[in-house]
Amino acid sequence: MSTPDTVTVDGPGLRDDPSRPGPVDVPALLAHSRETVGPALRAAVARLDVSSREQAEYHLGWVEADGSPGRGGGKAVRPALALLSAAAAGAPAETGLAGAVAVELVHNFSLVHDDLMDGDRERRHRPTVWARWGAASAILCGDGLLTLATEVLLEDRSPHAAAAARLVAVTTRELIRGQAEDVAFERRADVGVDECLTMAAGKTGSLLATSAAIGAVLAGAPTAAVRGLSDYGMAVGMAFQLVDDLLGIWGDPAVTGKPVLSDLRSRKKSLPVTFAVQRGGAAGRELAAWLAHTGEQTDAELRAAADLVERGGGREWAGAEARRRMVAAERALAGAGLAAGPHAELLALGHHLIDREF
Amino acid sequence: MSTPDTVTVDGPGLRDDPSRPGPVDVPALLAHSRETVGPALRAAVARLDVSSREQAEYHLGWVEADGSPGRGGGKAVRPALALLSAAAAGAPAETGLAGAVAVELVHNFSLVHDDLMDGDRERRHRPTVWARWGAASAILCGDGLLTLATEVLLEDRSPHAAAAARLVAVTTRELIRGQAEDVAFERRADVGVDECLTMAAGKTGSLLATSAAIGAVLAGAPTAAVRGLSDYGMAVGMAFQLVDDLLGIWGDPAVTGKPVLSDLRSRKKSLPVTFAVQRGGAAGRELAAWLAHTGEQTDAELRAAADLVERGGGREWAGAEARRRMVAAERALAGAGLAAGPHAELLALGHHLIDREF
Repeated sequence: MSTPDTVTVDGPGLRDDPSRPGPVDVPALLAHSRETVGPALRAAVARLDVSSREQAEYHLGWVEADGSPGRGGGKAVRPALALLSAAAAGAPAETGLAGAVAVELVHNFSLVHDDLMDGDRERRHRPTVWARWGAASAILCGDGLLTLATEVLLEDRSPHAAAAARLVAVTTRELIRGQAEDVAFERRADVGVDECLTMAAGKTGSLLATSAAIGAVLAGAPTAAVRGLSDYGMAVGMAFQLVDDLLGIWGDPAVTGKPVLSDLRSRKKSLPVTFAVQRGGAAGRELAAWLAHTGEQTDAELRAAADLVERGGGREWAGAEARRRMVAAERALAGAGLAAGPHAELLALGHHLIDREF
Repeated sequence: MSTPDTVTVDGPGLRDDPSRPGPVDVPALLAHSRETVGPALRAAVARLDVSSREQAEYHLGWVEADGSPGRGGGKAVRPALALLSAAAAGAPAETGLAGAVAVELVHNFSLVHDDLMDGDRERRHRPTVWARWGAASAILCGDGLLTLATEVLLEDRSPHAAAAARLVAVTTRELIRGQAEDVAFERRADVGVDECLTMAAGKTGSLLATSAAIGAVLAGAPTAAVRGLSDYGMAVGMAFQLVDDLLGIWGDPAVTGKPVLSDLRSRKKSLPVTFAVQRGGAAGRELAAWLAHTGEQTDAELRAAADLVERGGGREWAGAEARRRMVAAERALAGAGLAAGPHAELLALGHHLIDREF
């Protein structure tokens, strides 16, 4: 994870003045993408019934619980990837607009439903949709967001809109598979590392892969370019999940916004934990016994468990896997025959996602 | 409701020997449709992750809880409408196949999610998906069925497949609106008759309208034919809901499979109840007071409430509205310029749905 956020580029991309080569300002790139996608996303959400719309606008951070203007939602990485993916295929970034809206809608559909399934009462320090309006509302709001994604894509004028909508549907099925496996794994003590990686590919990788490819699909790019972009997104998604799992144990609460050792507190069978249990020898067996134990634990006990993950090789393995995935991501992009500017911006965006303190 | 199930036809339709004019055997037509659609529906469901697939196959009546072969699911009216709609537009019925699979998937998506939202533990005398596997599984299984509908349509070879998929997405948004209104109305005592009709149009009418039109859309039929078929489906759907609401109060338990006076027992604000409350004068006010009262009621009290619905005009109004909608349905079909055989079969199928004992 040594590559900095700042990468020198020499071609056009999402920046305001693409003729001037310079470092990629990823926060500015993300802000520009949010501005580009915002109006179309708002117009889509405005079609929902009055209740689902209110819930979606709150969930997306556009309004607060008291009706005041929202403080904003997430970074919207997926729409930025979608716009860049059109530009990388040599088309105007706006060619990817419907794709950008669709992947953001699908992402938020999955968040609203997952929060309910996982029983999470808070997201970004605010009550989740189900916690505020009840389970029925969260189900309907999520269903509505998913449906809008299909609608928006099929209204697009691109002759490749139907192919893009089909890609999003297949991706949604992958998301559902990943979440279904996550739910099933909670009840099992014998989940293997490969199963866990396959689950992460569904839950995290698939939508990032599609986000990084959908603009190129809408632009009618050659298969090799679409595949390279998709492989890039999948590799970045897997690296992201591995880093996220490391941060869930060893992340600084001041940086992650989560309590210290949070994934161990909730006994989450994350990737490093699964590796240590399955392949960590004596430390792994001790960790497995600890995971089977229920009830509150002291911070000292949680630190001891983190130590078992580390002694079982989970920390080292996850870090090495993440680095390996980022190398694969760079290689996938390099072979895709992309425009230089967006290529560099995609690289910078990928590293921005991964290079967090841990 | 005087038209019999049996109608003489003089052109080709879904029957095995379309050259021979004769009465429409609606149960045979439905059975033939189920046979036509079955393999494609099973192939679609087989793509789901292993958990969602098991749940969907159980929900659809293909397997029982103990793993034994299922005793079958519903009549599959919507797929039959979709196939007939292609034939009505002069195309082979199979042109509507992807549409038939899609509407059946969307219908079952809504059943799986609605059962959870409504807290219904049984459907067709078997535990519902959420009652058997939990809320998370029902959410994911429903999400998966909805996604498959888009996939199946966008894989179809028809040049109008994207238009059909867009129609299904807009229809799903209407379904969601109807269910969201239903949820919201539960908490209100002042729901108007028009609001209640609009809600029924979303929950029941919209998918029947789309089922009756989607085959014609896939066949590239003229707008007038598509609109006539859609209007027909909407009118039949509204008539169906009105009759269903009458049966929910006055239906014979031996015929409906529901307990006597079941909708009053659950204090459902059905269409006849809403009419009586809003426009039923003194009887309506008495009924409103009864609805506001909570707690168990004796059968005698429920019968007294049914009497208030009747004295408030709810029974007569709902019956007259249902008949009026069936006349409108026939008129919509008559003006759509359809092939004679499928036209007669659509009419017979509509009456089969509506002409139940009450």
